[in-house]
Amino acid sequence: MSSSSSKLHLAVIGVGGVGTCFLSQLSFLPARLRPNVIFVSRSSKQLYNSSYTPVNASDLQSSSSKLLSIPDELVGYLSSAPGKVILVDNTSSQDVANAYPAFLRKGISVVTPNKKAFSGSLQLWNDIFSAVDSSQEKALVYHESSVGAGLPVISTLKDLVATGDQVTRIEGVFSGTMSFLFNSFAPADGSGKGKWSEIVTQAKEAGYTEPDPRDDLNGMDVARKLTILARLAGLQVQGPDAFPVQSLIPQELESAKSSGEFMAQLPNFDAEMESYKDNAAREGKVVRYVGSVDVGAGKVKVGLEMVDKGTPIASLRGSDNLICFYTKRYGSNPLVIQGAGAGGEVTAMGVTADLIKVVERLT
Amino acid sequence: MSSSSSKLHLAVIGVGGVGTCFLSQLSFLPARLRPNVIFVSRSSKQLYNSSYTPVNASDLQSSSSKLLSIPDELVGYLSSAPGKVILVDNTSSQDVANAYPAFLRKGISVVTPNKKAFSGSLQLWNDIFSAVDSSQEKALVYHESSVGAGLPVISTLKDLVATGDQVTRIEGVFSGTMSFLFNSFAPADGSGKGKWSEIVTQAKEAGYTEPDPRDDLNGMDVARKLTILARLAGLQVQGPDAFPVQSLIPQELESAKSSGEFMAQLPNFDAEMESYKDNAAREGKVVRYVGSVDVGAGKVKVGLEMVDKGTPIASLRGSDNLICFYTKRYGSNPLVIQGAGAGGEVTAMGVTADLIKVVERLT
Repeated sequence: MSSSSSKLHLAVIGVGGVGTCFLSQLSFLPARLRPNVIFVSRSSKQLYNSSYTPVNASDLQSSSSKLLSIPDELVGYLSSAPGKVILVDNTSSQDVANAYPAFLRKGISVVTPNKKAFSGSLQLWNDIFSAVDSSQEKALVYHESSVGAGLPVISTLKDLVATGDQVTRIEGVFSGTMSFLFNSFAPADGSGKGKWSEIVTQAKEAGYTEPDPRDDLNGMDVARKLTILARLAGLQVQGPDAFPVQSLIPQELESAKSSGEFMAQLPNFDAEMESYKDNAAREGKVVRYVGSVDVGAGKVKVGLEMVDKGTPIASLRGSDNLICFYTKRYGSNPLVIQGAGAGGEVTAMGVTADLIKVVERLT
Repeated sequence: MSSSSSKLHLAVIGVGGVGTCFLSQLSFLPARLRPNVIFVSRSSKQLYNSSYTPVNASDLQSSSSKLLSIPDELVGYLSSAPGKVILVDNTSSQDVANAYPAFLRKGISVVTPNKKAFSGSLQLWNDIFSAVDSSQEKALVYHESSVGAGLPVISTLKDLVATGDQVTRIEGVFSGTMSFLFNSFAPADGSGKGKWSEIVTQAKEAGYTEPDPRDDLNGMDVARKLTILARLAGLQVQGPDAFPVQSLIPQELESAKSSGEFMAQLPNFDAEMESYKDNAAREGKVVRYVGSVDVGAGKVKVGLEMVDKGTPIASLRGSDNLICFYTKRYGSNPLVIQGAGAGGEVTAMGVTADLIKVVERLT
């Protein structure tokens, strides 16, 4: 079995946080599951050679390889390799995502945590999967870590659909940052660790938010994940701006010029968040930032909801994600997956596990 | 791609509860994922023909096919088929399980929810996986539904291990029956729906237990699942009787001659279960039937535990299973999978999803 897999080649775009963890996990795979790395790139550096011999990612920084354009020249280089090629895209680049159909049409499989490809335009989604279906050679696309990092979310949803279950509803907490903010601001036990702006400040300082917390608070990261899940469940969602997404950036602060100005003004809006919390408490509930797909009604939404205490969503801790699949077979009690949904190692785990599945299918 | 998969053949042993659901799910798969069924059997009936043309399971009852011995004659018949063969074993038969190495050595892949093969002797486990590794042709074995039915338990554990995570501890509620009994007997909200023997009687009448509830209460079903998970996590567990398993059959009732006699005597032992419940309550906890694998210490155990309220295990509802994977990458908050862990449709879903993966790897 190892003889045929030794002909597999690997191209890795992006060796930042996730990419570094991925390369480390890759190095520990047994030889029969580990393709030869023939291309590595990071921002304005690329490392490869014309004889397709393995490269060492640690030589990337000092590489003087001529930059190949993406997709045209890179597709040309990879499709001439002596064997099948798998592209691992560890970036969050829309440009690289837009190139997936070009890679796939040439028989190059794609493994990625990049949400942009699957949550952008419906046209791109259709182009990607029609390239997979029409590829003369077997070209596969796997993207487990595009939702919930290494948690088995995408694979489980695909199994439910493929085996003929009817997914009626998907609901959960899809952002580690939002999870941390609301589990701290309005925990189910009624305590609470401060005003909303204080919680956001603490989370930012502890590294739980993006460098600019507005990139979390606008809800777009969650909207992208819901777009992916809704499409896998069969809905023709045009994109993450095609359904209601509640931004937690106060309207008055949308024009704030910097992250610093935004954070300085945020305390002026604590009363609004406090009233959400109090309204929920009066009904014996807690406020959470929830995403949901109602498959039957064809409706997707993302925003604040009042959630019953005692439910899995209300009981979440730390920065865990939680995804509930309600289906015909599972009845009133959903299939639930819970755990860390962000972080370099667990995101890379989803990528590495996908890579193993692709290698197993190609060899 | 459909041309090569049309050469795949399928043999199905067992068309009872799970098997019937499986055949139904199979019939809805797209043609490229649906192998030709060339053999179906159920207790003392078999249906096949010497030309390997597809058979119709509904003709099984009236079949007059000469019975093939398992494994010898069946292995001979299947290994002469014009193409690769996948065997789906929907029984819980130890005899069929014992034959897996013989099928695998002949290049016949195995997909099954049958726990017996993976939780029996360590020798059988080793024979199965060395047959997979040494098979000249690609013979695969998938058994997702052997733990937690269709829940993604086996696949997740295998992904964690394969990508190099260190699984330190596995813990959970692995029996739908035990879950229902304790969620009713000692719910986290302090209510409780009666004495232990009353709860067992209600569960039996509602069909939540085996026809003889002792088959659930002896803990062996849970012990078998823990054996499988412990082995996948790397422990050399000799079998389900090689570690402590607490039976909930009172010692004095072990010799009860019938299920009826057992149920009639059970109320005499309610005080014992009540004291477990009260002891837990005094510490602000609830009693649950828990299985755990401590990978570092190499210890597996199954039995009653006092569990903190507010934890996922204490908050379980209905007859749900819950499995927590504690790993190095996931840190203090485990990766958790929860949902129905028994039932024909969800068990068959795990089998069908495995079949799809095997078809995808063989074509």
